[in-house]
Amino acid sequence: MDAKLKIEKLAVIGVGLIGGSFGLALKRAKAVRKVVGVGRSRKNLAIALKMGLIDEACGDPARAVADADLVLLAIPVGGIAELMARIAPHLSAHAVITDGGSTKQDVVAHARRFLGVHFSRFVPAHPIAGTEKSGAAAAFVDLYRDRTVIITPEPETAVRAVRVARAAWQRCGARVVQMRAPDHDAIFAAVSHLPHVLAFTLVNALTRRPDARKLFSFAGSGLRDTVRIAGSSPEMWRDVCIANRELLLSALDGFVGELDGVRAAIEASDGAALQRMFERARAARSRWLVGE
Amino acid sequence: MDAKLKIEKLAVIGVGLIGGSFGLALKRAKAVRKVVGVGRSRKNLAIALKMGLIDEACGDPARAVADADLVLLAIPVGGIAELMARIAPHLSAHAVITDGGSTKQDVVAHARRFLGVHFSRFVPAHPIAGTEKSGAAAAFVDLYRDRTVIITPEPETAVRAVRVARAAWQRCGARVVQMRAPDHDAIFAAVSHLPHVLAFTLVNALTRRPDARKLFSFAGSGLRDTVRIAGSSPEMWRDVCIANRELLLSALDGFVGELDGVRAAIEASDGAALQRMFERARAARSRWLVGE
Repeated sequence: MDAKLKIEKLAVIGVGLIGGSFGLALKRAKAVRKVVGVGRSRKNLAIALKMGLIDEACGDPARAVADADLVLLAIPVGGIAELMARIAPHLSAHAVITDGGSTKQDVVAHARRFLGVHFSRFVPAHPIAGTEKSGAAAAFVDLYRDRTVIITPEPETAVRAVRVARAAWQRCGARVVQMRAPDHDAIFAAVSHLPHVLAFTLVNALTRRPDARKLFSFAGSGLRDTVRIAGSSPEMWRDVCIANRELLLSALDGFVGELDGVRAAIEASDGAALQRMFERARAARSRWLVGE
Repeated sequence: MDAKLKIEKLAVIGVGLIGGSFGLALKRAKAVRKVVGVGRSRKNLAIALKMGLIDEACGDPARAVADADLVLLAIPVGGIAELMARIAPHLSAHAVITDGGSTKQDVVAHARRFLGVHFSRFVPAHPIAGTEKSGAAAAFVDLYRDRTVIITPEPETAVRAVRVARAAWQRCGARVVQMRAPDHDAIFAAVSHLPHVLAFTLVNALTRRPDARKLFSFAGSGLRDTVRIAGSSPEMWRDVCIANRELLLSALDGFVGELDGVRAAIEASDGAALQRMFERARAARSRWLVGE
């Protein structure tokens, strides 16, 4: 960890759970002197100011990034290309840019296209942290504490930029892991994007039934945990699904193939097959939980 | 609540999470004088004795139910018909029998067939309580505290039997709700059996991938919560799937239909449709959590 990291000005574009917690954590760590936050909603920015997530609110990303040493892009990935095009002419020649997007190949492609000369100072990042809540009010200083942040620098990325971005995430309390963007997207299509889609879908399937209200009134902790992530931001997940479309569809098809097998076993009342499947799942989950 | 309930002898057949917690809760409430536990594994029964879930271990259900005032059948539903046939000749003429099975129509059908004259004293029950753990070691006194227990008496069920079974579950700390067995099975196919099948299936779909180990190492709390219930007893869920086959298949098909729609929207990069679906799910989940 680089304890000497000292950012004069940090610009956080999108002061929600991810952006707000980043600003707050770096302020608390005394790694930053001033945090300027940009958001679409006045109300959200007022909350962010009041909570001390940012020092100054700004309606214009172009103005916010001027003179910034570090810029965090923390908006839903669907708007990131436009945002990059908007800020590129105003970035300083030493600014390091990082992001908090859940997909990386699309973000890298947009950065390559829209950040121009600043692309070598863009360090794509995905913090594996978050809750099902969103907005500045959900931010908290320890969001990144002991969590993993994946960075996916490209061959052109400058060593200094990687060092600064890595240090910033570490000062938030995170472990930083580096991998290639395509590997990142394949992994998270399976372990994150797919489960979110399934959770949203399960809630909708239940909601569609005529007895929906009664159903939910009898649901226990199993369903509650299973669909917790269906409380996540619809806008963010809409963008993730589109940005990581191919890998998500492939993960989804893998799931559907598995489900076809289970369905056939249920239809055939094939107890031995069901028990084998459920045992395999239980064992894999246990191995995962103990970190094998 | 019937604070005067006093059971001289309770027989618990299947001293796992459900049976063990029932015995322990009634002992602590001083609602029972003696608990005899029956189990297949000597080791499990030794744990149950040591934990004070039962007062006496017994290898033979027929012997255990002799002179019992209350009998709890707490084994996976697949074995319940055979168990009923085995104990029926040994039940006393006043014994009240209840169970902890997750499905009710099949259990009622078996009871009608195999309990004979004792059927009128059988009160089918489903405690909406449990964790993903199983076995006597997982039992605890507050498992039923403030949880719902659904009872599904039939037209022939004796009023006294319902009163005794209701009182016993209440003394464990539970709220007792009465409904028809077919209604019960339809509700739980949707809110419990389907989510369990999906959780097992998701873990297996991930496990099947060549990068499975890496996948799990990067999985966050979202996946962890989503598949918590994939730690549940494979044997129990095998039996539930078969016992409630028709209603489960119907719930599963509703889910698959919904998933087809989501898949089409992802494939078409239809952001508006995805956002609508995810918003509907998030709103329904919120309404559910506030109990609307």
